[in-house]
Amino acid sequence: MSGKTNYWRTSGCAVWLTGLPSSGKSTLAHALFATLRRRRISAEILDGDDVRRGLSPDLGFTRSDRDEHIRRIGFVCSILARHGIIAISAAISPYASARLAVRNQLRKFLEVYVRCPLAVCMERDPKGLYAKALRGDLEHFTGISDPYEEPEAADVVVDTAICSVDSEVDKIVSALFERGYLWNARRSKTDRKPAVDDGQVI
Amino acid sequence: MSGKTNYWRTSGCAVWLTGLPSSGKSTLAHALFATLRRRRISAEILDGDDVRRGLSPDLGFTRSDRDEHIRRIGFVCSILARHGIIAISAAISPYASARLAVRNQLRKFLEVYVRCPLAVCMERDPKGLYAKALRGDLEHFTGISDPYEEPEAADVVVDTAICSVDSEVDKIVSALFERGYLWNARRSKTDRKPAVDDGQVI
Repeated sequence: MSGKTNYWRTSGCAVWLTGLPSSGKSTLAHALFATLRRRRISAEILDGDDVRRGLSPDLGFTRSDRDEHIRRIGFVCSILARHGIIAISAAISPYASARLAVRNQLRKFLEVYVRCPLAVCMERDPKGLYAKALRGDLEHFTGISDPYEEPEAADVVVDTAICSVDSEVDKIVSALFERGYLWNARRSKTDRKPAVDDGQVI
Repeated sequence: MSGKTNYWRTSGCAVWLTGLPSSGKSTLAHALFATLRRRRISAEILDGDDVRRGLSPDLGFTRSDRDEHIRRIGFVCSILARHGIIAISAAISPYASARLAVRNQLRKFLEVYVRCPLAVCMERDPKGLYAKALRGDLEHFTGISDPYEEPEAADVVVDTAICSVDSEVDKIVSALFERGYLWNARRSKTDRKPAVDDGQVI
């Protein structure tokens, strides 16, 4: 990835960030987004309150509500990926079975475990949510009163307590290249992946 | 739109079909989709059970449930439109206020009233739903037990009891050109609309 800037190509996929609250998912999502956009790759971040309001205003944080929210994000990601967009999800997605379900649905799927020790997340706590959960003022808070099921076979693991954001982005980009979800625009035509994912969309 | 095939460009928008059950929304959506795809325009149809299952499995057909479903479709359309995709919604969307809300949210929005007399819709009734609703076996059925608020200022009106599907598609395509949501690829550079809708996406 060194040398002068050239353009990348993609036929779309989902990059699924999962990790504890305050583990660094949103920061990483935005840094990855910026890197992709610099190379003219279409990308979309599905994260936070906007997506909750947009897709799941009816849902709370029970296991079934979280699973349903993840499923809906997966549905939107699948549409975006079919249109050659890299959809970056930054939801906690604490349950392995829900993550597996979106992986199976999406096929072109990169699971990124945004790993960070709970103690570090609690120390960061930019919104004061851990403190609130520890006081008992916030129910169903992942890491405190709700479980987080660590990915056992994530495609990429980044350790946000140790690594720089840039190196985390590099790791994800490398994995996208390895899996053929990204490739260089300057390869010969025969090396190129098709810009068409199926008959329906470019 | 005559002459040899040339390519069209778009920066994305929503085409919002609204009309009674069996008025011809899905047929028209698929015909429009096919026409756009032939000109290499990215398009996506949001219609029927797939979208209900994908976005709103929790919702029924009460007014508030329908409005919420429409809102969610609008949310997805807004993402797609930002990525230069023409999002075609084919939901009944019976309530004017919900349609207005998505129009205001989406800005690049073409409301198409798929008009067809109730008697003709009831005669078509491919899934036997009108018959079921008339027997009282189906609650909240638009046109029978639920209202349909006719658009008072739709951008396009097509009369599916009279017109051919091809002419309806032409009418919509013409309106898309008039509003600058579609343009020809061969115009000079200065005539072209930007392929970038905002700083975020192509």
